[in-house]
Amino acid sequence: MTSSSINVAVIPGDGIGPEVIAEAVKVLRSATASADAELDLTEYKLGAEHWLATGETLTAQTLEKLRAHDAILFGAVGAAPGDTRIPSGLIEREMLLKLRFSLDHYVNLRPSRLYQGVASPLGNPGEIDFIVVREGTEGPYVGNGGSLRTGTPHEIATEVSINTAHGVERVVRDAFRRASERPRKKLTLVHKHNVLVYAGHLWKRTVEAVAAEFPEVTHDYLHVDAAMIFLATDPARFDVIVTDNLFGDIITDLAAAVTGGIGLAASGNINMDRTAPSMFEPVHGSAPDIAGQQKADPTAAILSAALLLHHMGFAEQAAKIEQAVENDVAARSATPRTTAEIGDAIAAAVS
Amino acid sequence: MTSSSINVAVIPGDGIGPEVIAEAVKVLRSATASADAELDLTEYKLGAEHWLATGETLTAQTLEKLRAHDAILFGAVGAAPGDTRIPSGLIEREMLLKLRFSLDHYVNLRPSRLYQGVASPLGNPGEIDFIVVREGTEGPYVGNGGSLRTGTPHEIATEVSINTAHGVERVVRDAFRRASERPRKKLTLVHKHNVLVYAGHLWKRTVEAVAAEFPEVTHDYLHVDAAMIFLATDPARFDVIVTDNLFGDIITDLAAAVTGGIGLAASGNINMDRTAPSMFEPVHGSAPDIAGQQKADPTAAILSAALLLHHMGFAEQAAKIEQAVENDVAARSATPRTTAEIGDAIAAAVS
Ligand SMILES: CC(C)[C@H](C(=O)O)[C@@H](O)C(=O)O
Ligand SMILES: CC(C)[C@H](C(=O)O)[C@@H](O)C(=O)O
Repeated sequence: MTSSSINVAVIPGDGIGPEVIAEAVKVLRSATASADAELDLTEYKLGAEHWLATGETLTAQTLEKLRAHDAILFGAVGAAPGDTRIPSGLIEREMLLKLRFSLDHYVNLRPSRLYQGVASPLGNPGEIDFIVVREGTEGPYVGNGGSLRTGTPHEIATEVSINTAHGVERVVRDAFRRASERPRKKLTLVHKHNVLVYAGHLWKRTVEAVAAEFPEVTHDYLHVDAAMIFLATDPARFDVIVTDNLFGDIITDLAAAVTGGIGLAASGNINMDRTAPSMFEPVHGSAPDIAGQQKADPTAAILSAALLLHHMGFAEQAAKIEQAVENDVAARSATPRTTAEIGDAIAAAVS
Repeated sequence: MTSSSINVAVIPGDGIGPEVIAEAVKVLRSATASADAELDLTEYKLGAEHWLATGETLTAQTLEKLRAHDAILFGAVGAAPGDTRIPSGLIEREMLLKLRFSLDHYVNLRPSRLYQGVASPLGNPGEIDFIVVREGTEGPYVGNGGSLRTGTPHEIATEVSINTAHGVERVVRDAFRRASERPRKKLTLVHKHNVLVYAGHLWKRTVEAVAAEFPEVTHDYLHVDAAMIFLATDPARFDVIVTDNLFGDIITDLAAAVTGGIGLAASGNINMDRTAPSMFEPVHGSAPDIAGQQKADPTAAILSAALLLHHMGFAEQAAKIEQAVENDVAARSATPRTTAEIGDAIAAAVS
């Protein structure tokens, strides 16, 4: 008899997705077995390859099936850059973003930590250990735009960023809560309210209001351009960053770069109300250039699996994986290992 | 008798603006005198201090007077962060952005170069020497947004990015022309067309179309998040970046950071059709914390003056200033000099 069970949908996707997810699954199996939990996995074939074969991105039926799971483990999607058969951005929007929006993943959680033994491109990085809480369901990502007189010299193209008190408040409160549970208890709002007045002021007012609920958390504000400078010159200043969907996209890739690359950056697309399954995915893309060669680093996918376990209430197992990754990364030598070798080592360490 | 004359409006602004502009003016005077050109300067008091004193940001009359000049040299504006007397972003929007938009500064030119002797936060920066051609008159900066049920739990705030074929094509063509005049002849479009489909595709199509006019220039594309990674790990890959107003704002602060800080980053807000004066300003802000202490580095302002001279047809004098800055920077020791000492040294070198 097992004490509990988790029913996970697995979407390996394209490129290096299947390789890194195979290792994340290995580690998940190992961690749940040691916790005496039952792990139920269902694989879903979705992504660019699937679209080429079937013409489907994400059907209503598949979406309903996915809703029935406790959580989703996601690899990466996207065609090779030169592949003109797939309309650019189609899979990203009709599949990945559709999942984030339909399943109300309003907390896009992206931890940034410089592990010991990992080289940062910064000469003097300091101790980097912060999390970015990126809003995941609105902002400039809503797909609300259009173009008029397309392809003529009179074309006008618009993109509308939509921001709601409901959407901003819930993610800001989540960020404050996370800040209150961290040793430094410091939150930084990143926006551009001197130019994006309406959205910016909604964010700023909301942070001021929610701050009153968390007197133990200090908070400050940075324009996104100033945040760039700090990320390059003093990333150790950050503890919790809360920001909108697009700024979060930009900040987290830079954060991944300064902490040694996107081979290590994990993320969770989290529905904190648990009205739908949350989805955990490495920040990196499908990297078609190295796909199928066992060259990809599965660490980001493995750390995403740890976030999944944490969200599902297995905090101890999640911590165990994080510790195993920390040890593995610290011991890495110049001799490259295959994707599977890294996965095997970490899976063994958590068993 | 002088061979020519330039009639420059000078807007020192707030904080360190007046100090750094004083040095830029010194260098301008020195460089134009050596070219036997007449320099006519008119100072305009504008900015946060001026607003506090008069309640005026930029009147129609002042704007008309500014139009009559050949060029504008701009310091920095902005109140101290804690100063609540000034509505946030008011001066930036009603003065700085109003100038950029009214005077049709569609090329926001921001060179990024790592000078010898300057420390980069990157451990291994390589040879950084690129320019960013940031669109300056549309995109998310148009101020087209609003909010409904403001301050209630039902608030909705929008920001509309407006992009036109006219606006995108002229800046893309300018960027290609600049690329064609550089040794590496390489242009990179940065956008996020997988998410911002309408604006992104207008930019992408325009780059493809204009590329046909410049067969000698190679071009590629990066999503803005990927561009972050390259700016942190391999900035030497860039030659000319062309991008929209908001992405340009973000990229150029990061670029300034990796090339040793915003103390050195110059910019031109250029109207290439010369239907109105162009404006040259350091990328940095008013830095109220160090204002009036002769601590600010005037180099960014001085390099902005060089861009001004270049735009006004004094290419030789502009190059002379750049060379003088290069020499000055290379010889800098750990002993700090005052703002005026740096200005004096560079002014002497170009006399
Ligand atoms: C693939 C793309 C749509 C996505 C995003 O922009 O959110 C990615 O960059 C990310 O950060 O997860
Ligand atoms: C002050 C602000 C409005 C301005 C901008 O966002 O363009 C500044 O950041 C810049 O880059 O010149």
